[in-house]
This record gives sequence, structure tokens and C-alpha cells, in this order.
Amino acid sequence: MLQPSRLARTARSSAVRDLLRLTERPDVLSLAGGLPAPELLPVDELAAATARVLAARGPAALQYGPTEGITALRELVARRLGHGATPDTTVVTTGSQQGLDLVARAVLDPGDVVVTEVPTYLGALGALHWSGCRIVGVDGDACGLRTDLLEERLRAGLRPKLVYVVADFANPTGATLSEQRRVHLARLADRFGFVIVEDDPYGSLRWRGMRLAPVRAWTDRVVTLGTASKVVAPGLRVGWLTAPRWLAPSIVIAKQGADLHTSTLNQWIVDELLRDERWFDAHVGRLVDSYAARCAVLVEALGGILDVSAPDGGMFVWGALADPSISASALLTDALDRGVAFVPGTAFRPDGGDDHRLRLCFTTLDEAGLRDAAERLAATVSDPGRGASAPGGGRPRASAGRGG
Amino acid sequence: MLQPSRLARTARSSAVRDLLRLTERPDVLSLAGGLPAPELLPVDELAAATARVLAARGPAALQYGPTEGITALRELVARRLGHGATPDTTVVTTGSQQGLDLVARAVLDPGDVVVTEVPTYLGALGALHWSGCRIVGVDGDACGLRTDLLEERLRAGLRPKLVYVVADFANPTGATLSEQRRVHLARLADRFGFVIVEDDPYGSLRWRGMRLAPVRAWTDRVVTLGTASKVVAPGLRVGWLTAPRWLAPSIVIAKQGADLHTSTLNQWIVDELLRDERWFDAHVGRLVDSYAARCAVLVEALGGILDVSAPDGGMFVWGALADPSISASALLTDALDRGVAFVPGTAFRPDGGDDHRLRLCFTTLDEAGLRDAAERLAATVSDPGRGASAPGGGRPRASAGRGG
Repeated sequence: MLQPSRLARTARSSAVRDLLRLTERPDVLSLAGGLPAPELLPVDELAAATARVLAARGPAALQYGPTEGITALRELVARRLGHGATPDTTVVTTGSQQGLDLVARAVLDPGDVVVTEVPTYLGALGALHWSGCRIVGVDGDACGLRTDLLEERLRAGLRPKLVYVVADFANPTGATLSEQRRVHLARLADRFGFVIVEDDPYGSLRWRGMRLAPVRAWTDRVVTLGTASKVVAPGLRVGWLTAPRWLAPSIVIAKQGADLHTSTLNQWIVDELLRDERWFDAHVGRLVDSYAARCAVLVEALGGILDVSAPDGGMFVWGALADPSISASALLTDALDRGVAFVPGTAFRPDGGDDHRLRLCFTTLDEAGLRDAAERLAATVSDPGRGASAPGGGRPRASAGRGG
Repeated sequence: MLQPSRLARTARSSAVRDLLRLTERPDVLSLAGGLPAPELLPVDELAAATARVLAARGPAALQYGPTEGITALRELVARRLGHGATPDTTVVTTGSQQGLDLVARAVLDPGDVVVTEVPTYLGALGALHWSGCRIVGVDGDACGLRTDLLEERLRAGLRPKLVYVVADFANPTGATLSEQRRVHLARLADRFGFVIVEDDPYGSLRWRGMRLAPVRAWTDRVVTLGTASKVVAPGLRVGWLTAPRWLAPSIVIAKQGADLHTSTLNQWIVDELLRDERWFDAHVGRLVDSYAARCAVLVEALGGILDVSAPDGGMFVWGALADPSISASALLTDALDRGVAFVPGTAFRPDGGDDHRLRLCFTTLDEAGLRDAAERLAATVSDPGRGASAPGGGRPRASAGRGG
């Protein structure tokens, strides 16, 4: 008789996640992850910072703390965010994943409409699901969310309570929302009365072009999500958000119920590392240089295999198979046989579209590894073997029968 | 037009939390908290463990990790929990507060009934709220939840999907659920088909009496919540749960949406400290000895002021004013004026009852501090001043007008 809740039963199945477990095989060169380069994680600096924090703060660094986060880090984050962010409307979160979950709780009632760009970050859909909202996708392109299409939908009567965007170097497309569209989106929020969630995990990882003012520079209806995951270390689970004044208290109450507060120790560690601006800026500089070089190598090596447009920053290249009738999902099993992994485009949209596209992450392999991976991918594409040519063509095959 | 979600608007107000901020004034001896003794937090051992973890595991300790938690810690926790707990149904959580939140998401649909003992842990109500469930209180006494009253309600037609108990040294009462009632509760779960959440933050902190088998020894319908907060450090936000096999996957999917996973670094730190059984057992022994002595001092010093029954472990003494017409809430403002703080009993139940009771935490003051606090409390009780005698008598006064 006992069974999970309705939302648990309808939670997006982890088929892709299961498939991606195969990519962890040691013989597989993975372009599938979304992880920072392990060799650039600041292990030694973090060890030293931890020792300093514990020596200076003692038990206070290990005790319960305020739900909204330690004051020092909220002040530091608000200063870095600028554009009117204040410490009292800034909340430290357990990664930016939790930031989105808290905003969903604080804003959404069951049945409310949420708009996301499609394709979009899978984890966003995972967090939004638990509010019982209805997710409506609006297409994006190389300049991000098509705000003209959004306006059409709004004029036709769509009334989202929340619109979710990754404005800089989106996951999976790598696209950056143009300035014109940022302004347009902000105007639409003001006119139609919705909250924009501007998720910014990658904004600091820019190697080309000018940094654009965030959407929140153009309207006060924005919740900005940020994180230390991509610029310090994801394993700390320290993120932050800054919210409109009417919403911040509800987010804090939601967080109190969710996990009381984010790790006190990890907040102090991040504070210690971000406060050392000379080190931090140099560290981000090293990440940017490395990722820029790796991205260039991968894009070049993919020439002739996939249609790709090189992003201006971030961690992902979004590629398309020249023949749109070939299924990237079906190709993945062959790719794994050849020792290379990627995420098929269908994984980033609920409607099964974009199946001739692939997301390729260039951060976790070195340049030789990226060239090798691209070769393996080329071999897969030029001779798809049984995967893509299997009966049923474009249908992905279940991974269950493949063992591993 | 924009406003927070319905659940955010109806979230339990933080009046008590606001009042408790006053208890953080340096001139106040606080019996109000629920924090471990700061001087017993293992700062040096934790610093050494962190250094060892980072040296041995390097970037892997800082990288993204599996949603359910690192295997080593799940294995260790399952072994310590025993009674059939297995690593594959054990999930590492961001504190046990998150454990309850995840169970609520995975089990409850809006409108479902949840039974809690009253009085009960405030944070539990805070987590359960966000599922949109209906919370029904069933009285407890010195032997914990009155399972006879629960059975009456069940026979009368109440159909909870979940029953929440703290079986060992409950917060706020310090009561331990008797063995007979544990068996009874388990039988009721089997007969009426509900899930029991057995929250066990304090079980290791026993200084008197035999440890009883947990409720989950008697039925497989139990989710057990545990935490490193009281035996290592709360600021790490590392807890765990072990769930029935049919439920564990839903909890993992819920966690994926909530925060992807718990801090990898902190999981390895807790693993490192718990794995050193000799150190860990000695450390818990020191906590138990210290808390037992402090509890005895406070109970003795309260003689003649309050009716108290000394708990067999944990962190709290539950006291009653001799005159049940005196409001502990009203007394609190006077107590703060005299430099002592406690939590009034009303804070632990939604119905405003237990207002002549007080929760007193004995862990954060030393023995001299406890005696001093008891004297201040005695002065407050014997000469309540304007607080309890204010017009309106039993009504707590707002804290807003009191400044600081």
C-alpha cells in the first residue's frame, strides 16, 4: 500500500544519469561530465585556508550558524555581485542547486508555470519538479533564450511566475544571452510580472568578448544564483543567491526547513579564499587560460566531425551531427565501445528534440586527451556500427542490457 | 502583484527565533540553545583529519560526488546502525534536518496527515511544512509518545502517512520512548500502514540506563535519521538516513534536486573521524561524562524553582513552573533582563499549550555558569517583575519593542 509521493513517482527518471555511469569506466575518455579540471582544484591552498580558519576561529567554525549564512561571506558576495546586491538580501546556499530549490519553494505554488530555455540545464528541471509547477520550454539559439518567442507566448496569455535562464555560457549550449535580449527579458518581467532566476555558475570563466551586465542590472525582479563550485571547488557545496527584498525572507525560512544552514566550516573556507583577491583572481585566470586552450583544441579537432560554434567561456561545446537523421543517443553506446563519452542533446529537453546534437565538456581532459577523444568520436560518427544503424534507427537503446 | 508561494506565506513565523537572538547578548547566560559544548568540539582532530584527507585524496575530496554519498561513509554508517541497515539504502544528507525534508518530499502528498508527538522538535515542523501536509499532534509523557492515544486516533479513522518520533532523549522533553511503546508503535505502523521517521540525534549521548533497541528493530517501515552534528560538529552539516528499500531511490532523486550531494570534503572528514573508533569512542565518552555532570548540576540547582525530571542522556531538561498559571513566555523577557535565557514550552507545540514549561539546555555552560543561570532563573521566578505580571498575563509580549 505504501508508495512514494506523487512528485517522487513522476520525478524525471535518471536514465541519462545511469548511462553516464558508464562514462566513469577508466578506459573511457569522457566529454560527458560537467566537472572542473581536477588538477586545477586548489588542494594545497584549500588545505592551508582550512588550517588558518580553524586556528583563527576555533569551535566557532564548527558550530551551528545563521540560516542565511555567515555575515562575512554575505558581505563579500554582495560586494562582488554589485548592481545593488546587499548582504541582507544575500543568502549562502548549499550549492546553487539548492538556490534554485529554495527559490522554487519560496515562489511557486503547484500548477504555476515556469519558463526555461530549451535545451536547458537538467538539474534545474530536477529542482523545479518538486514544486509541482508546469514547465514550459521556449527555444533558445546562439544568442540565448529567444525573448521574441517568449513575448509571443506572453501576449498569447502564458503567465509564468518564474523564468529560468543561464545568461552566460549556458549549459548545454555555451550560448550567451545578448544584451538586447537581457534588456528585453527584463522589460517583459516588469510588464508581465514574473521573477527571473539568473543562474550564473560560469560567468567568471570568460576568455573572449566583453562581460555583459547581468539581467538584474535591468530589473529588480531577479534572483541571481552564484556558486563557488566552478571557481573554487564543487565538493564544498557553497553557493549563494541575492534576491529581491520582498522574497529574501521567504527564501531564508525555506532554507531553515531544508538544511538549517550551509556548512559553517566551508563558508569560512570559501570566505578565506575569495577574500585573498590576488590569489583568487590569479586562480580564476589560470582556469580561464586553461579552459580557453582546451576549448580551442577540442573545437579544432572536431572540425569535419560536428558543426560546432566555439563559446566565449564556460565549460561546454554544443555540437550537431552533419546528418540530422542520426541519433546521438543511439551513437553513444558505440562511442562508449570506442572509449569516448558525451551527453546526447535529448538529455537537455523534455520533448526528445535535439537528438542529433551532443554536449561536449572540455574541462576534464588535457589537450592530448581531447585530441584522442575527438578521434574516437570521429571514428564513431564515420562508422556508427551497430548503435546508430540498429533497427529502430533514431531510438536510443536501453543501457540496461549492456552491463557495466 | 508578485508574492511568495502559499507555503512560504504560511510558514511558521520565526517569533521564537527572533526572541532567541536576544539570548546571544554576551551578558546573557543561555540555556536556550541546542548546541554542543563549544570547548568539546574536536577542533584539532578535525584540522588533522582534514589535512590527512586532502593529502591522501587530493582533488577527489573537492570534486562533485554521488548524490547518495560516498561509499565509504555509507558503509560505515550502515555498519554502525545495524538492524539490517545496508549501504545501498543509506543516504548521506546535509544534516538530519535535510533527512527529514527529503523523506517528506519522497513520501508526502499535499494534504497527507503526519503525526508528531507534542511537544516536539520545532525544526521537524519546519521541514514537514513544505510538503503541504496536515500535522496532527499526539501527546507524549515521560515515556515518550503516548502510543495508546495514537491507537485511539487510528481506530477512530486517522490515517497518517508518516509518524515522526525522537525515541531517545527527545527535544524538548528529554523523554525516552519505552520499549513497550516502541513495539506498540511498530505494530501500529504495520497494521495501519504508515512510515515511521525515527530521528536519532542524541542516542549516543546516554549516561544512565540501558540503550533500547530502536523502533526499526521491530518493523521495516522505519526511516532512521542520524547526524554527526552532536558527536562531531554541527558546522559540517553531515547527517545520514537509512530507508526501506522501496523508498530509498525516491529519497536519492529528491536529494539530487535539493543540493546534488552533501559536501564531499565534509563526508571524508566525518568518515576519517568515525573510522578511528578508538578516538571516536573516547570522544563520545568525554561528551557523555561532561553532559552527565552538567545535567546533574543544573537539575540540582533548579530544585525548588521548577519541577524537573532528569533525563538519561541528551542535551535538554524539561521543567515546569510550580504555578501553572504563570506564563513562561512572559517570564522570558524578565529572564533576559536578569541575564538568563530559556525556550518557553509553547515554542514546541502549535496549539499554545505547555506555556508553564521551559526547555533548558545544559550543554553550553560550564558548571559554575549553570549554577549562576539557575540563580538568575530563581530570582526571575520568585519575583517575576513586569514581564509575567504585565496586563494580559499569560500572553507573551512582542520582542520587537525591546531593542537589541
